[in-house]
Amino acid sequence: MDYITDPRAIETKSMEIIDGLIGPLPVSAEERKVIKRVVHTTGDPDFAKLVRWSHGAVPIGIAALARGASVFTDVNMVRVGVNSRLLTIKGGNVVCAISEPRVVAEAERTGKTRAMTAFDLLAPEMNGAVIAIGNAPTALFHLLSLVEAGRCRPALVVGTPVGFVGAAESKEALTQADVPYITVTGNKGGSNIAAAIVNAMLLQMP
Amino acid sequence: MDYITDPRAIETKSMEIIDGLIGPLPVSAEERKVIKRVVHTTGDPDFAKLVRWSHGAVPIGIAALARGASVFTDVNMVRVGVNSRLLTIKGGNVVCAISEPRVVAEAERTGKTRAMTAFDLLAPEMNGAVIAIGNAPTALFHLLSLVEAGRCRPALVVGTPVGFVGAAESKEALTQADVPYITVTGNKGGSNIAAAIVNAMLLQMP
Repeated sequence: MDYITDPRAIETKSMEIIDGLIGPLPVSAEERKVIKRVVHTTGDPDFAKLVRWSHGAVPIGIAALARGASVFTDVNMVRVGVNSRLLTIKGGNVVCAISEPRVVAEAERTGKTRAMTAFDLLAPEMNGAVIAIGNAPTALFHLLSLVEAGRCRPALVVGTPVGFVGAAESKEALTQADVPYITVTGNKGGSNIAAAIVNAMLLQMP
Repeated sequence: MDYITDPRAIETKSMEIIDGLIGPLPVSAEERKVIKRVVHTTGDPDFAKLVRWSHGAVPIGIAALARGASVFTDVNMVRVGVNSRLLTIKGGNVVCAISEPRVVAEAERTGKTRAMTAFDLLAPEMNGAVIAIGNAPTALFHLLSLVEAGRCRPALVVGTPVGFVGAAESKEALTQADVPYITVTGNKGGSNIAAAIVNAMLLQMP
């Protein structure tokens, strides 16, 4: 079996193929790299038509990460998908809210989901942070209620919940919220996509 | 914002919706649950047409996991996506080959990729195991060369590499190999899908 084994050569060739597949788009070079990385991580060129952001969200996210903002994730698959080597160079960390012992204990006490409990408890620490929600619509809905109530002010919310029950609605609510965002519309989404969007910004830090 | 917050209610409703979307399929009840979980984890009903397996692969995988087989993954996103609570009940563990210190050291020494090095070093431990490769075509190609050389005999290979450079070819090679397999054809794939396939089998253990 003959195949390319150099990871850089694979990625370069992959990005060239993706460029051809998605064709010209009315976005900036920075934004295009976000779209391309989502297509790269899913193998699905349809995502070029599904990625949405608020005005300036991509440069806002890059700037936040470059000044050392941490990334708060809803699930461990997003946590391990984020390129923590690049993040920690600038001083940021990846925090998966649901795994903290105080979150587990408080969720058991109240009967609320761990994702909701996590954002409740960590809200004060999320000011200026990048939030990456790749799995649960409930986590995104709850985060938006905290933002609306003025309990936290993230620099950027990357919200890509997946599925047929509440996911599309949670992402629609994100586009109406008073916070910079990046999302993908519809039922498709997932933790791999949330991590890919964050990584595309980490790779573009000055 | 009004939304369902009970995870079980969300999953039940989601699986009902997916049943309607994918319609009747010429597969067993066990196999259908694998397909449904892939659609559930991606929000993409097209996967119902892309999932492939060798004859009997789903019951073979369920039986292996039920007797305590471990799951060897190529990347950490698959490792954390696998339901380790269910796996450990039967005695299995999730092993992410590329993170073991001996693998990191040997890859640095030889200049080979960590994924390839990992399967080289761990081959003797993978007899009877379930292998879940969600990311790198090179990892899947290399595993198949080890199987062909008789250096390991997994119970099942779940291979769902993603992308435009080698992924489809690696999955095609998997369908030709002398080992039970579950895959998705084409460019689409990913670590979330590999984990979902393993979890669909874990959930069906007797």
